[in-house]
Amino acid sequence: LDAETAAATFEGFAKLGAALGASFAAIGAGMGIGKIGAAAMEAIARQPEASGDIRSSMIVSAALIEGVAFFAVITCVLVLFV
Amino acid sequence: LDAETAAATFEGFAKLGAALGASFAAIGAGMGIGKIGAAAMEAIARQPEASGDIRSSMIVSAALIEGVAFFAVITCVLVLFV
Amino acid sequence: LDAETAAATFEGFAKLGAALGASFAAIGAGMGIGKIGAAAMEAIARQPEASGDIRSSMIVSAALIEGVAFFAVITCVLVLFV
Amino acid sequence: LDAETAAATFEGFAKLGAALGASFAAIGAGMGIGKIGAAAMEAIARQPEASGDIRSSMIVSAALIEGVAFFAVITCVLVLFV
Amino acid sequence: LDAETAAATFEGFAKLGAALGASFAAIGAGMGIGKIGAAAMEAIARQPEASGDIRSSMIVSAALIEGVAFFAVITCVLVLFV
Repeated sequence: LDAETAAATFEGFAKLGAALGASFAAIGAGMGIGKIGAAAMEAIARQPEASGDIRSSMIVSAALIEGVAFFAVITCVLVLFV
Repeated sequence: LDAETAAATFEGFAKLGAALGASFAAIGAGMGIGKIGAAAMEAIARQPEASGDIRSSMIVSAALIEGVAFFAVITCVLVLFV
Repeated sequence: LDAETAAATFEGFAKLGAALGASFAAIGAGMGIGKIGAAAMEAIARQPEASGDIRSSMIVSAALIEGVAFFAVITCVLVLFV
Repeated sequence: LDAETAAATFEGFAKLGAALGASFAAIGAGMGIGKIGAAAMEAIARQPEASGDIRSSMIVSAALIEGVAFFAVITCVLVLFV
Repeated sequence: LDAETAAATFEGFAKLGAALGASFAAIGAGMGIGKIGAAAMEAIARQPEASGDIRSSMIVSAALIEGVAFFAVITCVLVLFV
């Protein structure tokens, strides 16, 4: 096992990690935003006149999850190019 | 194991990761958007007159999940070509 | 196994860890903020007139999770460049 | 396996540990603060007039979790630089 | 495997252990303080006039978990420097 071989091997592991990492971040976003969105639907059905408040709170909390998940996927893309 | 062999091996792992990663991202999107869509159906059934509000909130939250999941799949495609 | 080979190998593990670490942080943020957001939706549906109080408490607690998760992702990016 | 090789190898394991450690700390904070925040939302919905008391208790207990989680992430950053 | 090599190798495992140990301590604190905080929120919602008693009991029991978790993280930091 010389240096060139090892470099080729590690690139395989790094790419494997990048692909799986990006998809785990998508699972995290799906779990989190899914819960929030489902609760928002039920809340609008119970109080249709508060739908503006509910929608803005939904977007704020979903955007917080979105921010972390997107940054995680970008980290995985960085792994490919660094 | 020389460098050429290792390069061939790592490409196998990278492709494996890309394929599994893309499918995990699809699982994440399915779990998340599935919950939101199911809740939206029930909500429209309970309050048919609020269906416009419910539909627009559903599209916003589903689009947030879609964005992360899509970007994750694109990262997996990138793994194949970089 | 000489020093250069080992250095090439360790970089692979470090990159694998960075990609998986960033995505686990996103899963943590999704789980935590998802719970808070879903509870906030239900709370606004039950007490629409307290939506201001609920939203500000939601943002405070979600921001605490966001802070740790973001710092964890940044640590993972640091791993790539240090 | 000589000393230089081992030093290069251990750096890989240390970086892997730092990345995973930071993300596990974020999962811990997400689980803990998520539970507290969700309970606080429900509590405000049940007793809107006690929202001040509830919010201050929420911030105290969430800050305790935040403190440990942040210190753990900083320990992981220390691992990279020491 | 001579003495110098072994020293370099053990340092890698020690750093890996320090990072993971600190994050497991944070998970423990999150699980414990999270349960206490969530129960305190519900208790204040049920008996708002006892909020002083509830908050002080919450702080005492959460501080006990905090103390152990913090000392565990400090032990992990010590691992890096000793």
